[in-house]
Amino acid sequence: MAQDLVIGIDVGGQTTKCGIVDARGTVLAQTVIRSDNHEEVTPFIAELAEALNRIIAEAKAEGRIRGIGVGAPNGNYYTGTIESAPNLKWGHNRVEFAKLLSEQMNGIPVSLTNDANAAAVGEMTYGAARGMKNFIMITLGTGVGSGIVINGEVVYGHDGFAGELGHTCAVRHNGRQCGCGKHGCLETYCSAIGVARTAREWLEMSDEPSELRSLDKITSKDVYDAAKDGDQLALKIFDFTGRILGEKLADFIEFSAPEAIVLFGGLARSKEFLTEPILKAMNENVLPLWRDKVKLVYSQLKESDAAILGASALAWEL
Amino acid sequence: MAQDLVIGIDVGGQTTKCGIVDARGTVLAQTVIRSDNHEEVTPFIAELAEALNRIIAEAKAEGRIRGIGVGAPNGNYYTGTIESAPNLKWGHNRVEFAKLLSEQMNGIPVSLTNDANAAAVGEMTYGAARGMKNFIMITLGTGVGSGIVINGEVVYGHDGFAGELGHTCAVRHNGRQCGCGKHGCLETYCSAIGVARTAREWLEMSDEPSELRSLDKITSKDVYDAAKDGDQLALKIFDFTGRILGEKLADFIEFSAPEAIVLFGGLARSKEFLTEPILKAMNENVLPLWRDKVKLVYSQLKESDAAILGASALAWEL
Repeated sequence: MAQDLVIGIDVGGQTTKCGIVDARGTVLAQTVIRSDNHEEVTPFIAELAEALNRIIAEAKAEGRIRGIGVGAPNGNYYTGTIESAPNLKWGHNRVEFAKLLSEQMNGIPVSLTNDANAAAVGEMTYGAARGMKNFIMITLGTGVGSGIVINGEVVYGHDGFAGELGHTCAVRHNGRQCGCGKHGCLETYCSAIGVARTAREWLEMSDEPSELRSLDKITSKDVYDAAKDGDQLALKIFDFTGRILGEKLADFIEFSAPEAIVLFGGLARSKEFLTEPILKAMNENVLPLWRDKVKLVYSQLKESDAAILGASALAWEL
Repeated sequence: MAQDLVIGIDVGGQTTKCGIVDARGTVLAQTVIRSDNHEEVTPFIAELAEALNRIIAEAKAEGRIRGIGVGAPNGNYYTGTIESAPNLKWGHNRVEFAKLLSEQMNGIPVSLTNDANAAAVGEMTYGAARGMKNFIMITLGTGVGSGIVINGEVVYGHDGFAGELGHTCAVRHNGRQCGCGKHGCLETYCSAIGVARTAREWLEMSDEPSELRSLDKITSKDVYDAAKDGDQLALKIFDFTGRILGEKLADFIEFSAPEAIVLFGGLARSKEFLTEPILKAMNENVLPLWRDKVKLVYSQLKESDAAILGASALAWEL
């Protein structure tokens, strides 16, 4: 039988999403398991393989799976390992994820990379970056991730970990403490958590009226809702966030001269408030030769399927 | 006869250096012509072709030239053009340099890129980056240029102009005015001109004693000589310069995860004073996973031949 299908797996701290995908990017069957039910990787892989076999049967896809693509935090494309992933319960050391999963799945080849790189491959295969050879994917989620594509290839670098643009420095002096141990990282300002932090800091530092004051615990979604209501403070928070992101995008453009920047992730849903300040700061800070030339586009993948599609796209290259 | 030789041409604002190079990187014959004797490109190319034919005859290399590689400011690899190069007298518009030169040289193929990319190819072919697939070349000259190599290929980007790391932002607020029109560019601090500027600013802002005070017009070479003499202010200037460069190198590492950073150019000769502050800032500012792992190396090309060698290396790829 033709091997006309692939499997995409998105490993997150809490849940792992899996799906069977055809060449057009249709998700034929999918399932979700908990990532945090096991302290060790071996029983987790066993449960994952069981789940995969279940959806393979459901989609009548026995013998048709060409490969498995996995997006996982700290995933190394070259070695197929997950290395020191603090938010995976079983990921503290070096885990031979691709090898273990392939063994459990009767030798189906497994390709693995980090979630942002997987998203970039997904966007190139099925989404907003179709036909593009040079673009930078920025994932604005809980953190800020990135996948860099140059000449049609994801950049993995010397060691397999390239593309950590969320940890480039956005604020050099008195920058916010980042989970990585550094200060001032882009992700401390331009992630969902960063936006909520800006809101808390600004509410504390000023008396400016805002509907956000009535909330107990503020999320980036609350800031979005307030901005929708015309709340001035919320609007200023998006201006600030967009400006910091735009300033750094200018640096990234000067590195690899991409055709486009593709934004993806929960915070990218606030595009109505982010696009203008991002573009303004990006174009003000980039060399004249790229001014108003680099496109800013948003992911076109269906949100619920995006993680699976991104990971699955890796498997076509196997 | 075997086409066993190449020509390298380094086009600068004042002079254009040309040489015939063999596969081992030996310069068999070379010459220099003025770049600024002509207002238009056509007579310049005619004079250049004449000079090339002269050294070809001198090296008995008739029929043996496989290709010509050119490094030039604002050189575009994809199109072979030089575009809006303000410091070339005949370079204000779009100049079809590769095509014109090839026509004048009886159809010998010509490859062209900017000087920093040429330097990177040279280092990869003959120098410190031999055998490396992922590295970033930073040229510390009058300005700061860069050539980025990923997977063994120079990064040209979507439009052919990638790798302008000298114009990424080093100082976000109240940064120095750069020739490009922006403020705070890396090159305004970490070039030869930047070092001299730091010296002038610091001498003006403080009363600190320094042998630099006795000089009329300060160059980076003067600062180097003073540092050699143990001049405290001069040493602090190199600390400052190295720190700013190291901070930005950390960002670049997070982009492409190179095996090494290769430094090249006049200012790199001050390595005895730059290496320590660069490494310190680079390792303090990079993600833990790259800390103390990325090498900092200096160009190994013989200074007088380096520009020619860099450009000539391009021609082997033709």
